[in-house]
Amino acid sequence: MDLATLMKIQITADERRGFPVKFGGDRETVGQLMKDLIGLFGEVGEFSNILKKIEIKLDHPAYDGPSLTESRDQLREEVIDSLIYLIRLAAILETDLEAEFYKKLQINQERYKSLERN
Amino acid sequence: MDLATLMKIQITADERRGFPVKFGGDRETVGQLMKDLIGLFGEVGEFSNILKKIEIKLDHPAYDGPSLTESRDQLREEVIDSLIYLIRLAAILETDLEAEFYKKLQINQERYKSLERN
Amino acid sequence: MDLATLMKIQITADERRGFPVKFGGDRETVGQLMKDLIGLFGEVGEFSNILKKIEIKLDHPAYDGPSLTESRDQLREEVIDSLIYLIRLAAILETDLEAEFYKKLQINQERYKSLERN
Amino acid sequence: MDLATLMKIQITADERRGFPVKFGGDRETVGQLMKDLIGLFGEVGEFSNILKKIEIKLDHPAYDGPSLTESRDQLREEVIDSLIYLIRLAAILETDLEAEFYKKLQINQERYKSLERN
Repeated sequence: MDLATLMKIQITADERRGFPVKFGGDRETVGQLMKDLIGLFGEVGEFSNILKKIEIKLDHPAYDGPSLTESRDQLREEVIDSLIYLIRLAAILETDLEAEFYKKLQINQERYKSLERN
Repeated sequence: MDLATLMKIQITADERRGFPVKFGGDRETVGQLMKDLIGLFGEVGEFSNILKKIEIKLDHPAYDGPSLTESRDQLREEVIDSLIYLIRLAAILETDLEAEFYKKLQINQERYKSLERN
Repeated sequence: MDLATLMKIQITADERRGFPVKFGGDRETVGQLMKDLIGLFGEVGEFSNILKKIEIKLDHPAYDGPSLTESRDQLREEVIDSLIYLIRLAAILETDLEAEFYKKLQINQERYKSLERN
Repeated sequence: MDLATLMKIQITADERRGFPVKFGGDRETVGQLMKDLIGLFGEVGEFSNILKKIEIKLDHPAYDGPSLTESRDQLREEVIDSLIYLIRLAAILETDLEAEFYKKLQINQERYKSLERN
């Protein structure tokens, strides 16, 4: 499934629940971007909290925290939750994710040239 | 282009530059997750800074900030940059993004039932 | 209680638990900054999640979310948790928070001049 | 200078520039919390970007990035900028930062007992 289809599926479900991505004016668009950005942040924060606990456990075996193996599924879920908010932000901005991804790939090719291995 | 292909393209380029996603032990894996999480955060922060300025400009016309129209391309670029880090986190965790996305779609279907419009 | 005293109390407790702020080399210092930065993300993320739910509830009364009044104490707690991580980052970087705060106050005085009311 | 004084200085300056912390209703209060939270993301993101570059430079000497020594002042500035947004969030929520800090100190004393060194 390509990114555009995935975006369409997500946005269709969201709109049915009352979370639109199209607005009549800049103020409304900016307002929704702010809401979804905060949503994204919440998910990235959950990922961070899990990773923090795994890391403390590695450093301090006496700490009551999970291992990476125990938390892998949870971490994956936070990645998906973050992806969903990112897709919403992209949709609100009418972004062609695939085209922009390729554009960035070229830019990074140039930027990280010094790190390329022969 | 599907998500798995996109992930493969990104990771192949990254590995060539010395940013691997596969490691021999948990400590190394956790270390790389931490690095890419901070990378993700940097991009989300850039998005935030742009959005903040647009918003201040809307509230305070005297403020020397950009409009949404002027910043749309930049915001899109930050979304892509965030997506790339998210793809890296997913790859390190060996995530099947598409399968996980569908799983989450079902979960959210249940969770947001009360908001569904008839 | 001034900021320097507050920092000292926090760091003394942390060091006793095995979370130091002084290191022999840059790699160790950077490693700890990364850990505490991710800790900060986690707390800011928790704040974000609560605020997100309050906001959805305001927009969608059918949503099962809390009101601002119901969440105020929790939000305050996340602010403090974030403050603690920020104090740790400041301590690792040997920051004189008070002096730096005053310096920034001057800079912002200049930067936001156009917004000053007469 | 204690935290309450520092908060008062910051908020007085902010209010003069048209960034209030007191509002007539929940919607306005939540709206301002969202704005300042996004401001906080931006500053934490700038800190993240600098730290990311320092870390890449440590791992990949060929990378054109700064050292910790070269970036220390910049990192400190981002800590202060983050602190200012945190103070704003605390002020909007009418938080007694010092009292809450002590409360949390007690909670963490209990939570991290297993890590205490004798």
